[in-house]
Amino acid sequence: MPMFLNSSDAEFDTQFARLLTMKREDSPDVDAVVAGIIADVQSRGDEAVIELTSKYDRMELTPETLAFSREEMDAEIAKVPAEERAALALAAERIRAYHDRQMPQDEAWDGPHGERLGWRWTPVEAAGLYVPGGLASYPSSVLMNAIPAQVAGVERLVICAPTPDGVANPLVLLAARLSGVETVYRIGGAQAIAALAYGTETITAVDKITGPGNAFVAAAKRRVFGRVGIDMIAGPSEILVIADKDNDPDWVAVDLLSQAEHDESAQSILITDDAAFGLEVVKAVEARLETLERRAIAGPSWRDYGAVIVVRDMDEALVLSDRIAPEHLEIACENAEDLAARVRHAGAIFIGAYTPEAIGDYIGGPNHVLPTARSARFSSGLSVMDFVKRTTLARMTPEALKAIGPAAETLAIAEGLEAHGLSVRARLNRLNEE
Amino acid sequence: MPMFLNSSDAEFDTQFARLLTMKREDSPDVDAVVAGIIADVQSRGDEAVIELTSKYDRMELTPETLAFSREEMDAEIAKVPAEERAALALAAERIRAYHDRQMPQDEAWDGPHGERLGWRWTPVEAAGLYVPGGLASYPSSVLMNAIPAQVAGVERLVICAPTPDGVANPLVLLAARLSGVETVYRIGGAQAIAALAYGTETITAVDKITGPGNAFVAAAKRRVFGRVGIDMIAGPSEILVIADKDNDPDWVAVDLLSQAEHDESAQSILITDDAAFGLEVVKAVEARLETLERRAIAGPSWRDYGAVIVVRDMDEALVLSDRIAPEHLEIACENAEDLAARVRHAGAIFIGAYTPEAIGDYIGGPNHVLPTARSARFSSGLSVMDFVKRTTLARMTPEALKAIGPAAETLAIAEGLEAHGLSVRARLNRLNEE
Repeated sequence: MPMFLNSSDAEFDTQFARLLTMKREDSPDVDAVVAGIIADVQSRGDEAVIELTSKYDRMELTPETLAFSREEMDAEIAKVPAEERAALALAAERIRAYHDRQMPQDEAWDGPHGERLGWRWTPVEAAGLYVPGGLASYPSSVLMNAIPAQVAGVERLVICAPTPDGVANPLVLLAARLSGVETVYRIGGAQAIAALAYGTETITAVDKITGPGNAFVAAAKRRVFGRVGIDMIAGPSEILVIADKDNDPDWVAVDLLSQAEHDESAQSILITDDAAFGLEVVKAVEARLETLERRAIAGPSWRDYGAVIVVRDMDEALVLSDRIAPEHLEIACENAEDLAARVRHAGAIFIGAYTPEAIGDYIGGPNHVLPTARSARFSSGLSVMDFVKRTTLARMTPEALKAIGPAAETLAIAEGLEAHGLSVRARLNRLNEE
Repeated sequence: MPMFLNSSDAEFDTQFARLLTMKREDSPDVDAVVAGIIADVQSRGDEAVIELTSKYDRMELTPETLAFSREEMDAEIAKVPAEERAALALAAERIRAYHDRQMPQDEAWDGPHGERLGWRWTPVEAAGLYVPGGLASYPSSVLMNAIPAQVAGVERLVICAPTPDGVANPLVLLAARLSGVETVYRIGGAQAIAALAYGTETITAVDKITGPGNAFVAAAKRRVFGRVGIDMIAGPSEILVIADKDNDPDWVAVDLLSQAEHDESAQSILITDDAAFGLEVVKAVEARLETLERRAIAGPSWRDYGAVIVVRDMDEALVLSDRIAPEHLEIACENAEDLAARVRHAGAIFIGAYTPEAIGDYIGGPNHVLPTARSARFSSGLSVMDFVKRTTLARMTPEALKAIGPAAETLAIAEGLEAHGLSVRARLNRLNEE
């Protein structure tokens, strides 16, 4: 049984605060091991990567076989059934169409003294995408990371996808191909992140690394941050469903379970204005859990971290939702669109009863890499913006320098930075002579 | 004498690679001390902040005097001379005008099956800006951090600005007021960052922390990242000037020195297609260094990290510039505008001989908080975007779910995520019955 809270209860504030600060993840401290791996890859390059892959993934590689050959990729991709192939192609098409609209615009204009101002966006030159091996090897994540990079105009896009015991995921390789990625290295862990950040004889270093991974991968990304750019370091997944009583309790139940089945540390929360409906959903979850394939994961997640919160009205639901700042927010009420417009902090909103969160995981179009652990208060999901950067532009005319230069000089002197002032003054002196 | 390289020399590639990887900063390892300070502020709140301020800043505070009162701010601000007041107001006006154009647009559109897609931008609710004390307490940085936050619509914006030995900087307080900041705490160091991230009895926690600081502040920002958002962790400043022989060597010299005077670890590089001009600039730098107020800083910076690179032509200059990915890039050539349009990696470009970098530090309009240490390859300067975040939106219609739901279900099953598939299937079953 998950937590069942009622906002009218005297102790609600305390209970809700506990829910907000609940620690769901206990990452093992692998930082020392990771530091050693990174240093090893930096000094020994391919040799270190190959040894570590043998040790951790039980795969014997050579510099020539670090990446899949084109023929190997073709052979793996040929194994994908037609239905999955069509589904992945449709997903890629819709994700691309959504992200195409995210490309930011360059701007240029003239200031009041004829000076030219503006900025220009340019793509990151090379990006590396990490794709976990084993159970959490999701082709959908390949699309969600690679397509925004491709839309941004990243020239060189490579993937590291470990193949423990030599087992590759054909759908991951197909997703790579659909996203325009030709180079897939069959390496993983901190050694893959180190190779992407520092390069080896065979692997050319990239400028940005994105994609999910285990504790080793996360620690390695933190360590190479600054040398290269990284995306967020994501925590366990979360969903908040706001639903009134005019919903099918079973629909809400499977939506809650679709997060819970990811991870025992995942969190699923329902906020409703109807206590009886809340109880019906709890019952529906229990019923679904009896037969769910991943009940050994979804069950503990729901029992340990799940919650049903009964509120007075939907205004209160929105207040609580903003405090949670959920990664995924489903709003299934009659006025769902209006409520969604008032939400301030959420990674993604799924509006109306016909928009289960799983649509957003695969095929809706928006990105499924989203801010977890309340970080939607200050950050956004992955987008084209993660693969471009802005260069600001300024060009003064002599007239503009005459008009605004003296103020710059005054401030430079006030800050004790004489050379700053002189760089303006030297030019003003010439202009005043002319 | 700085390094003097020529791209035609046989050993140039090795020399240039050495220039690129030169380590200029040796940050003291203060991580353990900082971890202790953060834990102390988390557990003892105001009391810890007050004790640490007494220890490090020799300032005795109480919870009531942690922030400047309105009267205290008024009294300090009244000390600012009229000329500086006018200069700062002009800077604020121009910075605001530039950043006003950065506010991103919400988007919403209909997909092929009548489904609604889009995204919405919302401001970060509360932000804290760190302003160093002592010599590096720059009012211009207050404007550059606070104005983008204000433009973004951040509701609560506070400043932490330590006042060692009780000495406040009136111009910093005026800059705070011009940027709409009413609350300025006179605390600094890791204890200020901890207070902003976790809150104390008196200081309400914020969602995002920006602004420069010493090694303690940088280490604290790294540690609280995730709990709150942070801006970049900036390294020592850099400038690259690309200039042909039709420039006044003295202008280029003071521009190079305007970076060198920031910090002994700062780096100033000139790329020119004329060796004789390069030597003239070196002479002009030496001449200016004889009398420069901050020659004890600028001299070592120029001698230890400065460089002049002679290239065959400006095409080669651009290739090298992109490899450097400079924080500040000045282009002073006849076709400066065309060259600037071809630059791929730079934080900010200053175009033409009448745009010294110092204009950008104070009054041009673009932000002066820019990516250092080659990180312009993958990141941008501070902007309004740092204070907003995107929520993606999706609303399926029954028709849309019928059209694309089956593909989502196929992918969910292929990824072994049954509940994801069921959340779509439950709805499709109902729709198919109707």
